[in-house]
Amino acid sequence: MELQFDEKGLIPVITQDVKTKEVLMLAYANEEAIKLTLKTGFAHYWSRSRKKLWKKGETSGNVQRVVEIRYDCDCDALLYLVEQKGNACHTGNYSCFYRRLEGDEVRC
Amino acid sequence: MELQFDEKGLIPVITQDVKTKEVLMLAYANEEAIKLTLKTGFAHYWSRSRKKLWKKGETSGNVQRVVEIRYDCDCDALLYLVEQKGNACHTGNYSCFYRRLEGDEVRC
Repeated sequence: MELQFDEKGLIPVITQDVKTKEVLMLAYANEEAIKLTLKTGFAHYWSRSRKKLWKKGETSGNVQRVVEIRYDCDCDALLYLVEQKGNACHTGNYSCFYRRLEGDEVRC
Repeated sequence: MELQFDEKGLIPVITQDVKTKEVLMLAYANEEAIKLTLKTGFAHYWSRSRKKLWKKGETSGNVQRVVEIRYDCDCDALLYLVEQKGNACHTGNYSCFYRRLEGDEVRC
């Protein structure tokens, strides 16, 4: 079976710290990003806002060494298990998931 | 800021075991699914294949009690931290991410 890319040629990628198991971020990859990740050992994604291939940390230095890539039962999601250098989030937080939905409000 | 739903009114949800920190699955929610999750304390999603609201485990019994919901820096992804009853994956595996991409092949 082939990996299932969406109509934009992308597949969602969950990135998890291989040691602490903290979920760091959710991003997207196209086939080229996955190939570069496998080839270089560093996490690559497709930036939907900048519409370009993106090596995580290429400007900030906060690279992610990818220890393992897993895929799910439907072949339509990936999990990168990484060693994170510095912080994963551009806000300076270690994980992008640093805030909690409170009460019953569907707001962020 | 509002949660950022995509053009189909959906937002991706990473589901993680709150105790073992294992990533269990990636699914999607619409606003109603999030509200029901907050109201009932059990994980609800939108099934893209069946095109309906879906309480995880409603037929299998493998429900997920949601301890916490987090959202990411861009407000376009959620993280459900859950207590999983039974297995999360319909294949009988605990996590949907039970297979590893091998070599340099982008195949599953």
